[in-house]
Amino acid sequence: MTNTNYIEIIGLIAAFLTTAAFVPQAYKTWKTKDVSGLSLPMFSMFTVGILMWFTYGVLTNSLPIILANAVTGILSIMLLVFKIKYNNR
Amino acid sequence: MTNTNYIEIIGLIAAFLTTAAFVPQAYKTWKTKDVSGLSLPMFSMFTVGILMWFTYGVLTNSLPIILANAVTGILSIMLLVFKIKYNNR
Repeated sequence: MTNTNYIEIIGLIAAFLTTAAFVPQAYKTWKTKDVSGLSLPMFSMFTVGILMWFTYGVLTNSLPIILANAVTGILSIMLLVFKIKYNNR
Repeated sequence: MTNTNYIEIIGLIAAFLTTAAFVPQAYKTWKTKDVSGLSLPMFSMFTVGILMWFTYGVLTNSLPIILANAVTGILSIMLLVFKIKYNNR
């Protein structure tokens, strides 16, 4: 196994762990529609940050960064839409 | 400005945004000592993931990944110690 493969595997495990920790939280928020715990400015900042990480991953050809931030990015945008929708009621 | 500088700046902004979104949450948990919202297995997984991202950043010489995950890693370990401490009461 080359060094690059070894580094890539560490990145992929990291991507799996941090994404897997975020998914149940996002799912719970989605199911309960309880977005009261989310701060709109903070969560907007987080979502923009994730999209910039995704861009950084594409520009540096890093598969772990692309994968982790694609999944987290889609979930964040969904939660942000929820937050904006339910905030206005 | 070279392309590498341009990519690095995108990464640093991403690092700033996602870290800045995490800090107030960590600070609030620290102050209130209310760790009931944290799931121990999920948060342990997240913390290990952050430490692996840090390792990945070191191995790929990525300053944004190193910075973001150093700060988030330290805060996560502090919250994890809190969670274990207050869980046992």
